[in-house]
Amino acid sequence: MMLDTSKNILIVGLGLIGGSYAKALRKLGFKISAITLKQEDIDYAIENGIIDEGYTEPVPEVIGKAELIIFALYPKTFKNWIDKYQQFFKPGALLTDVTGVKSSVVYDIQNMLRPDVEFIAAHPMAGKEVYGVQNSDPKIFHGANYIVTPTEKNSKEAVEDCLELGRLMGFNHVSVLTPEKHDEMIGFVSQLTHCIAVSLMNCYDGEKLQDYTGDSFRDLTRIARINDEMWSELFLLNKETLLEQMDKFLAEFSKLRQTLEEGDRDTMREMMRISTARRALFDKK
Amino acid sequence: MMLDTSKNILIVGLGLIGGSYAKALRKLGFKISAITLKQEDIDYAIENGIIDEGYTEPVPEVIGKAELIIFALYPKTFKNWIDKYQQFFKPGALLTDVTGVKSSVVYDIQNMLRPDVEFIAAHPMAGKEVYGVQNSDPKIFHGANYIVTPTEKNSKEAVEDCLELGRLMGFNHVSVLTPEKHDEMIGFVSQLTHCIAVSLMNCYDGEKLQDYTGDSFRDLTRIARINDEMWSELFLLNKETLLEQMDKFLAEFSKLRQTLEEGDRDTMREMMRISTARRALFDKK
Repeated sequence: MMLDTSKNILIVGLGLIGGSYAKALRKLGFKISAITLKQEDIDYAIENGIIDEGYTEPVPEVIGKAELIIFALYPKTFKNWIDKYQQFFKPGALLTDVTGVKSSVVYDIQNMLRPDVEFIAAHPMAGKEVYGVQNSDPKIFHGANYIVTPTEKNSKEAVEDCLELGRLMGFNHVSVLTPEKHDEMIGFVSQLTHCIAVSLMNCYDGEKLQDYTGDSFRDLTRIARINDEMWSELFLLNKETLLEQMDKFLAEFSKLRQTLEEGDRDTMREMMRISTARRALFDKK
Repeated sequence: MMLDTSKNILIVGLGLIGGSYAKALRKLGFKISAITLKQEDIDYAIENGIIDEGYTEPVPEVIGKAELIIFALYPKTFKNWIDKYQQFFKPGALLTDVTGVKSSVVYDIQNMLRPDVEFIAAHPMAGKEVYGVQNSDPKIFHGANYIVTPTEKNSKEAVEDCLELGRLMGFNHVSVLTPEKHDEMIGFVSQLTHCIAVSLMNCYDGEKLQDYTGDSFRDLTRIARINDEMWSELFLLNKETLLEQMDKFLAEFSKLRQTLEEGDRDTMREMMRISTARRALFDKK
């Protein structure tokens, strides 16, 4: 087990998630370095005890002493970073990430990587509608899912270490999926729901809408506040899977529309009974 | 102003909403009678101090002494009830309702009604995913919208009394809309959102889904638990308006799907920026 507090952890990308990792891990006693773009984020993180040291450039000595490196970058930035700076990794270093899509990232990274380091991918399914290290908070991990997505290139030890990392940071449910299964699941429970919320808010520009909005509409559109730069990249990197999920939804929605148009109340009620029974499973947990 | 506590209030239909009205109004000092189908609901309501008296039949003397009658029935049952029992109304009685659709109800009721009583329609936009007087709770009115939908047949006094009723019961936002505007608004913020949640739950039967479900999916599908008998009736009674709203949503969703298929990231990001800006308005309130 490599996760003892003598180990140096480097976080690359100190935003909401990177910052929340840093807070959770430093509280456990780890020494945390960070590399991120803005000096103001580093200043904030040091002043608030979130990291031990931080740099706006990929300093070779800082990269070279880290036994565990956590990448909290957008997918394409992540790949570019590995390409340019993997020469500085310490032999035997373990790399992990927080990227929201997997198939289009994990294999590429593993294929370009030096053979003496290991990349084990993970996805912390947690977030907020606000961004930046200033809003970071490890409480978002409580009650949330943490998914490790190994390939056949990964060692059993790395998978175990990565699962342990999720447990240590307070995730409620820590599990393993293949990159493909992960992307299918995330396409449905996360990306499709964001597509729906965005489309719904784009439907209507009634200025006075908020005066009549009940909890249903608020709940359904909460996630319509979305980081367009990040989510558009994630959608496009999971394109085929997400298109499939969108088409499934379109088929069911169109079926419901047809029951309404045709006055087919029996089929409409049957769809409602199915949704009620399935949704009730979530509340029983 | 007719709403002083010497007045007799009759509630027809003692379910979740009827029961919540009863609790709120009896607490204010009104005498509450109820007519509802099941003796067990009456027994429960009397034992728990929710009503003063209750009957499973439309007793003429009980109907005849009420100065304010609140109908908390499904739309078609409501119309049948008026047709059969309006003969027993006290001259000058004020009638109101809680029905979730308006155009298809209000005019029909007003047209069939005796000229010596007045029906002023209202919609309390509040609810729960559970039913029955046993789950009634006037707290669901706090922070909720109450909408009065008068027609040109209504008196200014009745509109004022009905608005006051909403205020007295603790609704946060009490307002007036035409039946048509009400149905358009409700078609969008409530019925369309329920259609989306039902369709989404019908999409996927993955047994292990709940293990990976984040808050987004839970929030979006909460209202997929739905009373199929009531909602199918409400959908069909607002058919043309709801079909229009569903088509608007289909158009936006399909547009977003197209940006994905074509890799048109700029348009995708623009849609996300629109949804973010519009949704932010709700949170500022």
